[in-house]
Amino acid sequence: MEFNYNLPVNIVFGRGKVNELGKETAKYGKKALIVTGRSSSRKSGLLDRAVELLAKEGVDGAIFNEVTRNPLISTVEEGARIANVENCDVVVALGGGSIMDAAKAIALMAVNEGDVREYMYGQKSSDKALPLILVPTTSGTGSEGNCYSVLTDDKNNDKKSLRTPAIYGKVSIVDPEIMVTMPKRVKASVIFDAAAHAMEAAVSKKRTPLSDAYALYAMKLIADNAENAVNDEEINYEVWEKITLGSMLAGMAIGCSSCALPHALEHPASGLKNIVHGEGLAALTPAIVEASWESDPERYAAISALLGGNSALDCADSIIGFLKRIGLDVTLNDLGIEESDVDWMVENAFKVSIGNINNHPKEFSKEEIREIYIKSL
Amino acid sequence: MEFNYNLPVNIVFGRGKVNELGKETAKYGKKALIVTGRSSSRKSGLLDRAVELLAKEGVDGAIFNEVTRNPLISTVEEGARIANVENCDVVVALGGGSIMDAAKAIALMAVNEGDVREYMYGQKSSDKALPLILVPTTSGTGSEGNCYSVLTDDKNNDKKSLRTPAIYGKVSIVDPEIMVTMPKRVKASVIFDAAAHAMEAAVSKKRTPLSDAYALYAMKLIADNAENAVNDEEINYEVWEKITLGSMLAGMAIGCSSCALPHALEHPASGLKNIVHGEGLAALTPAIVEASWESDPERYAAISALLGGNSALDCADSIIGFLKRIGLDVTLNDLGIEESDVDWMVENAFKVSIGNINNHPKEFSKEEIREIYIKSL
Repeated sequence: MEFNYNLPVNIVFGRGKVNELGKETAKYGKKALIVTGRSSSRKSGLLDRAVELLAKEGVDGAIFNEVTRNPLISTVEEGARIANVENCDVVVALGGGSIMDAAKAIALMAVNEGDVREYMYGQKSSDKALPLILVPTTSGTGSEGNCYSVLTDDKNNDKKSLRTPAIYGKVSIVDPEIMVTMPKRVKASVIFDAAAHAMEAAVSKKRTPLSDAYALYAMKLIADNAENAVNDEEINYEVWEKITLGSMLAGMAIGCSSCALPHALEHPASGLKNIVHGEGLAALTPAIVEASWESDPERYAAISALLGGNSALDCADSIIGFLKRIGLDVTLNDLGIEESDVDWMVENAFKVSIGNINNHPKEFSKEEIREIYIKSL
Repeated sequence: MEFNYNLPVNIVFGRGKVNELGKETAKYGKKALIVTGRSSSRKSGLLDRAVELLAKEGVDGAIFNEVTRNPLISTVEEGARIANVENCDVVVALGGGSIMDAAKAIALMAVNEGDVREYMYGQKSSDKALPLILVPTTSGTGSEGNCYSVLTDDKNNDKKSLRTPAIYGKVSIVDPEIMVTMPKRVKASVIFDAAAHAMEAAVSKKRTPLSDAYALYAMKLIADNAENAVNDEEINYEVWEKITLGSMLAGMAIGCSSCALPHALEHPASGLKNIVHGEGLAALTPAIVEASWESDPERYAAISALLGGNSALDCADSIIGFLKRIGLDVTLNDLGIEESDVDWMVENAFKVSIGNINNHPKEFSKEEIREIYIKSL
């Protein structure tokens, strides 16, 4: 047994903790680039609140609100440019996974030379970045608990993760109260992203004792609370605390273990068609588990049990049942993917996701991966 | 639910990982103060090996080998003085809990003004210390996974912990191979220290989702492997890996949750009579659990089950059975504590351990704590 564990994020978790944003940011800088999306943090009032919280502690804020779903490399380049133009010395991310991922890459590229692609493909590396304060507003990505940033290349649709310890948040403020304004379908998809992280970490080849400690714990929190989190008309904060915690722990788990085949095959799909990541995972995961459970019957049985199943054999069915309960039983076809896209996705998966493919407990040929895509249509 | 999680240690875990000592230390400095004990690391050859590993990476080493069991404040003062005389810019701890704890305080006091007591009692604080590289050679204390340093004041026998994020290891190199040379009795006592950390974290009032994730996982590893680790004639490295991992996770757990009554009552005993910490815990824990299990039946039942018991009701007996199996069923009397020491210990516990007393799931009066000491004689 050997492993490395290095997760230097100061996690501040709890309802109302967003109020500490100013105080925490002021420890790292005087001028913050606030990275956020085009509208939701403005509509919810969170953006104004953040600016005010920063100002109260003497931190000036420049707003960069150009980040979209499946964040683009061109957006990161623009964000890094603005961080420099505005002389920002700290980056605050206010949003979901796309926002946090973009903010992480912006923090890296603001102080490093070259093309972000070089850092994604390991041709360059750096241990410096602007300090990052992460404030998640969705509970799914878990980006607040790891050093990954998943970006899409506008030039060729490659969706790939950038991974370097330099882009850990200095502080992640995880406040379940600011997450409950998501629409129902968004809730379901981000929650399934978190579930996929937990499941993939649990079976991954690179799993460690720490990812093990987080993964099944996270999966239990998610399995037990997802249905209420998505379907309840009234907000139940106790349920949301548990979902938020599960999502963060699942993000920490993949931070230790990496992801496996579902994420490997989803990235080409959302890179190509800009689909919602959690929906892509929902379309792909059952077929992958169906083809994989024999490679790790013990772990797939544990996952199945948490979802109400009986054994590894029915793990895929248990996942389908779970997806139905949260209204997310979709196919790739539903998401706009055609059979004619499959060949590109197979080739692209081996280009952008080879690490996660190799991290899956079962080895698949290109032809077998093609079959999984076809089955998921 | 609210909590803070901040554990910025780079943990490098695995057999043979001590070989990375030079490379890891060189990232932080050019001249290391090697803090170790009077003889064991010299006898085992580890000290020579460490000096060589450092030299190979261009790091010079000054050896400070004055640390004893229940490390003294005067030793810390002397170590900090030598770190400065020798112009050390990094501190390497090579030893068990006493060594790591002393090294942590030395790293703090080498760069801060005043008396270490002021930092222990919260009159002063600092966020700077010399960078620390921790190399545990016993698996019990878990000091490699938290920011605690337990010191004894030679002036008045107060044994109390110093706690500040400044004294997290930058790197903890946890190598199960360098731990197996402990004598049998030492193995048993350090393992019971780890078990106590896990049990206290599991029931503590300040427990968090992260301490929960670590504590019972650690307890299972320890419960399942302690007997073999202590009693087997031949070294079984798989067993030792699990004990070492359990010990580290338990140390991380108390780093999140603090300890509870067993540690609170043991510190006065080992402060007064310089007894072995794990033996003091072995003498005290059963009576404490006997008096406490009703305050958290679920958790005490879980602990009992891991040790082969049936319910919370028999948790104390399960612990006694476990202690017998590892040859550590001792009384305070066996360790040299007399009834006439009890009044001092009661008063001292409320002076040095009030935090851990308040963190216990059940509240006890001074008279009740007196009874626990008497029962443990």
